[in-house]
Amino acid sequence: MTQTFYGQINPPARLLMGPGPVNAHPRVLRAMAADMLGQFDPEMTGYMNQTMDLYRQVFMTANRWTFLVDGTARAGIEAALVSLVEPGMKLLVVRAGRFGLLLSEIAARIGAEIVTLDIPWGEVATPEQIEDAIITHRPHVLACIHGDTSTTMAQPLDGVGALCRKYDVLSYVDATATLGGMAVATDRWGVDVVSGGLQKCMGGPPGSAPITVSDRAAAHIFSRRHVEAGIRGSDTTDGARARIPSNYLDLAMIMDYWSEKRLNHHTEATSMLYAAREAARIMVEEGLENRFARHASASRAMCAGLRAMGLELFGSDAHRMTNVTGVYIPASVDGERVRGRMREDFEIEIGTAFGPLQGKVWRIGAMGYNAEKSKVLLTLGALEAVLRQEGHAFTAGAGVDAALAAYSA
Amino acid sequence: MTQTFYGQINPPARLLMGPGPVNAHPRVLRAMAADMLGQFDPEMTGYMNQTMDLYRQVFMTANRWTFLVDGTARAGIEAALVSLVEPGMKLLVVRAGRFGLLLSEIAARIGAEIVTLDIPWGEVATPEQIEDAIITHRPHVLACIHGDTSTTMAQPLDGVGALCRKYDVLSYVDATATLGGMAVATDRWGVDVVSGGLQKCMGGPPGSAPITVSDRAAAHIFSRRHVEAGIRGSDTTDGARARIPSNYLDLAMIMDYWSEKRLNHHTEATSMLYAAREAARIMVEEGLENRFARHASASRAMCAGLRAMGLELFGSDAHRMTNVTGVYIPASVDGERVRGRMREDFEIEIGTAFGPLQGKVWRIGAMGYNAEKSKVLLTLGALEAVLRQEGHAFTAGAGVDAALAAYSA
Repeated sequence: MTQTFYGQINPPARLLMGPGPVNAHPRVLRAMAADMLGQFDPEMTGYMNQTMDLYRQVFMTANRWTFLVDGTARAGIEAALVSLVEPGMKLLVVRAGRFGLLLSEIAARIGAEIVTLDIPWGEVATPEQIEDAIITHRPHVLACIHGDTSTTMAQPLDGVGALCRKYDVLSYVDATATLGGMAVATDRWGVDVVSGGLQKCMGGPPGSAPITVSDRAAAHIFSRRHVEAGIRGSDTTDGARARIPSNYLDLAMIMDYWSEKRLNHHTEATSMLYAAREAARIMVEEGLENRFARHASASRAMCAGLRAMGLELFGSDAHRMTNVTGVYIPASVDGERVRGRMREDFEIEIGTAFGPLQGKVWRIGAMGYNAEKSKVLLTLGALEAVLRQEGHAFTAGAGVDAALAAYSA
Repeated sequence: MTQTFYGQINPPARLLMGPGPVNAHPRVLRAMAADMLGQFDPEMTGYMNQTMDLYRQVFMTANRWTFLVDGTARAGIEAALVSLVEPGMKLLVVRAGRFGLLLSEIAARIGAEIVTLDIPWGEVATPEQIEDAIITHRPHVLACIHGDTSTTMAQPLDGVGALCRKYDVLSYVDATATLGGMAVATDRWGVDVVSGGLQKCMGGPPGSAPITVSDRAAAHIFSRRHVEAGIRGSDTTDGARARIPSNYLDLAMIMDYWSEKRLNHHTEATSMLYAAREAARIMVEEGLENRFARHASASRAMCAGLRAMGLELFGSDAHRMTNVTGVYIPASVDGERVRGRMREDFEIEIGTAFGPLQGKVWRIGAMGYNAEKSKVLLTLGALEAVLRQEGHAFTAGAGVDAALAAYSA
């Protein structure tokens, strides 16, 4: 083998104002510099228990089973679906964007019978549509996305848990893009399983998926428990239902690992646990309502600024996520050239789009550590300069002034 | 919800001389303090490509497909098995310890037809036994463990790839516990897929699973490719064979993400990528042969020191892993009390054991950043003191002296 040497990690200091990942909070980065512990050392299991408690606060829940899946947000989604949905069970997926499609993509591999409630991109499902779909299909499980960054719309979820319980349906919500930025009100919604990620409004790196599981969902999942050969304790029995077809993403085994039993499963990803714990600690210190208000202010200012530059926003204001904004690319400019200039001249990243919106909208985020006045203003100022260079006509300074006014209002 | 506050991460400075996780190299911890990048930023994809090249060197291979699975080592094992083994395919598992059992546990959930070559704990399989098992069972895939920390034995693998190719068998090796400490000679072995972790001899944190895939295994895996709805490019077609039943651990999609196509899959775990890259960079700078020699020296000294304290080692010297040593707990002492005193009085962790060896042996590691003279000597000195306190009779100082002599030899 030829030896090849590379220099040390030295990324450009870039302001990430896309749909995520975004810049991590410096405290989270510093927490990851702490050294390892043995996985069953009392200090390590203590940190695991504190992390469970902190994420109960983040997920606004009293659920005992609130912990981390060791993978990116997608691992949390698959762990939820593979643990809840048995092959042949009927799953109702609410799809209003790319991440709704992802839910059915993952579930199809599990062998679920999938039925869908398809909503045009840019809209959300009404409670009536959801109830009608439940009555029509009588699913075992309902799955939906809280904030689908592909459309920048947030699905209202108040009452959805009660609907699901009325018809004896288990419910799953992916809150990857909203956790830490908008209220992810697990207990108020009454939903059973909610999962998220760190790399958006939590202000951490991608690679850990916080998840919370209601007691009734945990009972269902434990009824599928099949403990690994060689680590079974006398206090752990197998369930009667079909074994979960993944070992790594088996929530029954992961819950046994996070429980007092501490049944060995994977080796907890220590540095990512430190990151997740610190991200939640920052959120709890800030106060959830303050944090949601900070995101909402940034969103109002961003929307006002973009509109003052003569740009049209995508989707309805009523259901807009408060941490990422979709905006139509003006017909007169090349969207990718604008993104390139933003990155090259200003070291600011804004996002492109997926599927039917590709080439039509940009997605501009203000998430977590970046949901902050100066960063919103700097982004708008840079975008103004680039759009002027690219020939889009509007009153110079209007965007930044409108955002400042929104912050003063 | 009640707000609960916790202090910042502040783990005790503990020397981790168990079977892993072990202390991370400080450079790896520092690399993780670097901030995020957009996942398709040119600097980010550049780091991904460099990481592929660095792990080719670590895995001693020219395999194009050498990359990271975003999860702990177990995620790498499951990704390999779920991507290689179709439901109903026959898998031959060589089992000589707990991690051999894990391979069949994971494969059973995939719906593989599992046949086994079972070897007593503390021994390894001979080439003749492996060939006989292949001839008897005619499997599609063979899976085995390189170094099974549960027994501290390393399975010799020279010639195994050739045997598998002779009988048209795909081969998988789990090298989690040896990667970075012993030669993981992918191309010389001629095996198809090898996966590892960072938290043992690579001197990094748990949470990323490096993996390498031969061209013939990649062709098989791509024949199972089913691209996700909404991200399909015109240059990517679905394969003819059964779809891989996991989305998150689908190596066909993960390879498309790491390829020039950059098809969106998960969001790469940025900080863990930085850690994996730095761990490999340290290894390449040190030189692989120097690094293996460093582990071998530490092992010789540890073995000499333990024997000089009147302790008996577990398993045969001929097949001993050079990074973790099994040693019988003397009948006169309580093994868990000794481990407790090591941790409480000396801040040194040594390992307990699994299954049939639980309560009978300790496992003492010297891995990665800890495979180093001073740490071996400090561990032996501390163990001497604790064993004296616990009434085990031997000549005081004999262990440390013997280890020093082994280093001087």
